[in-house]
Amino acid sequence: MKKFSANVIENQKVNFLFDDSKNLSGLSDIEFKKFKKIFIIFDQALKNSWVKEISEIIKKSKSELHLIPLKGIENIKSLREVEKLLYFLEESNCSKNDLIVSIGGGTILDLSAFVSSIYMRGVKLVMIPTTLMGQADASSAGKTCINGKQTKNLVGSLFMPLYVYNNIHILKTADKYSHRQGLSEIFKYGLLGSKKLIRYLEQYARDSLENDPLLLKILIETIKVRIKLRKIDPLVSNLGHTFGHAFESESKNLVAHGDAISVGIVCSLKLSLKKRYISKKLYSQLIKIMRDLNLNINIDKSSNVERVVNLMKKDKKSDGDQIGFVLLTDIGKIAKTKNKKFLFLDAKYVSSFLTELYKDKDFLVTNHWKQLIKNV
Amino acid sequence: MKKFSANVIENQKVNFLFDDSKNLSGLSDIEFKKFKKIFIIFDQALKNSWVKEISEIIKKSKSELHLIPLKGIENIKSLREVEKLLYFLEESNCSKNDLIVSIGGGTILDLSAFVSSIYMRGVKLVMIPTTLMGQADASSAGKTCINGKQTKNLVGSLFMPLYVYNNIHILKTADKYSHRQGLSEIFKYGLLGSKKLIRYLEQYARDSLENDPLLLKILIETIKVRIKLRKIDPLVSNLGHTFGHAFESESKNLVAHGDAISVGIVCSLKLSLKKRYISKKLYSQLIKIMRDLNLNINIDKSSNVERVVNLMKKDKKSDGDQIGFVLLTDIGKIAKTKNKKFLFLDAKYVSSFLTELYKDKDFLVTNHWKQLIKNV
Repeated sequence: MKKFSANVIENQKVNFLFDDSKNLSGLSDIEFKKFKKIFIIFDQALKNSWVKEISEIIKKSKSELHLIPLKGIENIKSLREVEKLLYFLEESNCSKNDLIVSIGGGTILDLSAFVSSIYMRGVKLVMIPTTLMGQADASSAGKTCINGKQTKNLVGSLFMPLYVYNNIHILKTADKYSHRQGLSEIFKYGLLGSKKLIRYLEQYARDSLENDPLLLKILIETIKVRIKLRKIDPLVSNLGHTFGHAFESESKNLVAHGDAISVGIVCSLKLSLKKRYISKKLYSQLIKIMRDLNLNINIDKSSNVERVVNLMKKDKKSDGDQIGFVLLTDIGKIAKTKNKKFLFLDAKYVSSFLTELYKDKDFLVTNHWKQLIKNV
Repeated sequence: MKKFSANVIENQKVNFLFDDSKNLSGLSDIEFKKFKKIFIIFDQALKNSWVKEISEIIKKSKSELHLIPLKGIENIKSLREVEKLLYFLEESNCSKNDLIVSIGGGTILDLSAFVSSIYMRGVKLVMIPTTLMGQADASSAGKTCINGKQTKNLVGSLFMPLYVYNNIHILKTADKYSHRQGLSEIFKYGLLGSKKLIRYLEQYARDSLENDPLLLKILIETIKVRIKLRKIDPLVSNLGHTFGHAFESESKNLVAHGDAISVGIVCSLKLSLKKRYISKKLYSQLIKIMRDLNLNINIDKSSNVERVVNLMKKDKKSDGDQIGFVLLTDIGKIAKTKNKKFLFLDAKYVSSFLTELYKDKDFLVTNHWKQLIKNV
């Protein structure tokens, strides 16, 4: 037998643009006029605000414009919707040299990027996230996805947009709830890889979450850290996720991802403290920043330890009764079990840890999750 | 505004295995036992032959086996079939660490590789092509696809299999018709990038297309050339395609892709000769090899020059009345129009060239296309 290994395809580069201009002037960096046809897939709730402003700018290119409004709800991340979009592109004779522009939060970005990635094996894509979570997460690592029959984000691809346009000013019209989800994601990246980012966030909290130039710096640093971590292992960004995903499921998805992950991070920090990986001082300092950023640091009393631990055993890092965690020994330093990439703990140990944690009144609020939802 | 560009994802390597053992012993290179679950998606026509032999070998891994038979017809390359397969994987709790093995010709490989590429953003895949076209083409450049509503291969992704297992012995059970399609593809890669491959093919024709060790060498060289060309430009491999795709459409897809492309190559060589890019000697030598390989070098009389030229104007390399061609000035050397990657010729010129060509009796056979189909 003969054999050889080969890299068949070269990498694509993503161009990240970070703008704080009110009139979206940074969009002029993108040569829209190079494209014969431009398809704008957007959240219909933004039709008369950002989409109107952005399409006015794109119109100057004299390209043939197609506007495709979608509902910004989780339900649209389905194969049915993918089919509709693919057939629309086919009927409109969209070619590989045309452009798709996606405007919206995570849901719209996930779906439209997935469609862009599989139409003719990839049409050029410009992503314009309109939420902080969209800027920090959905558009920054080449992930695109739709849901399976039962599993969230089951189906997807890795695909690089041509440009990601992040404008801080666009975030002004998003709500506090959505801002908090994004900050939770950003805080996680700070813990995983950048003391500088943690310092920025400390300052941002002191400025009452209202320092725009600082937010721009925060975003840039977040995306740099994210790309660095992505290359180590996609699962590294799972800090707080083993707990967080379980809480999310246990709440029947009433708790948003960011809120679930931030309390998951609290649990991970507490566990790191218990294992003496981090000092009491660092622990307290980090929890203070989380409080100041208004991140969710609470578990709901109604959640059941046994069910939560069972859910944690199903986590993609876990193996049987060994539950896998991304825990820290310091900012940017990940705890490992011998010969493994992450830390593995026995389910029984995790169960007794959680039982103890539930007695800690700092982390328990009755009906807290419902309050999180209402508190938009 | 601030900006930066970044490569977000590292490349994956593909392991190509080339085997000539009758008992498929080369498969032992693949550590099947590392996978808890293995899903074998295969052409049901091979159930009692290769699939049986291969699954006997895989069974030794003690992994949980799931057998998924499919019809090896073009119709299955649909979103409906993709949905069925995705939901089957979801219901079977297929995880990102499980394995999909795909066994069959181009149709089965295209569909199952597409599903592998989008389930959980990519499940590990072993491809076992059972036709020469499958080995030389469908499995060698990370392409995966399904059809659109009207357009063949409209939807797809770029995705690297973990292993491609090419066994020459498996090809013995494929028919001559399918062998000819593969040889046509291989001849094209020879012209585009490897004098060595053309020499091999000359020898292979002399050995009545029955020299197995040589066929193994041919395959290895083909895949090396293919990967080299892929990195220059995916469209480079379009030699013969501007003519060939038009003939394919004009025959209402009665002519198989390989047969249409090989006569497309003849037209391209004739055009290169007319433009004095290549010598009469090289032209005659190449046509002789094509004849000896039993490749199709005939256009059907029933095809209409005007319709063919109109179809050529729709080719993805064309731009209005300027028709784009991959033409050669020598083996491995591509003719270019100034500042362009390929050669552009006016539709009128192409039309008069074809009209002249149609008078050449060497290239005209009545009802030839129907004979090609029957001549399995």
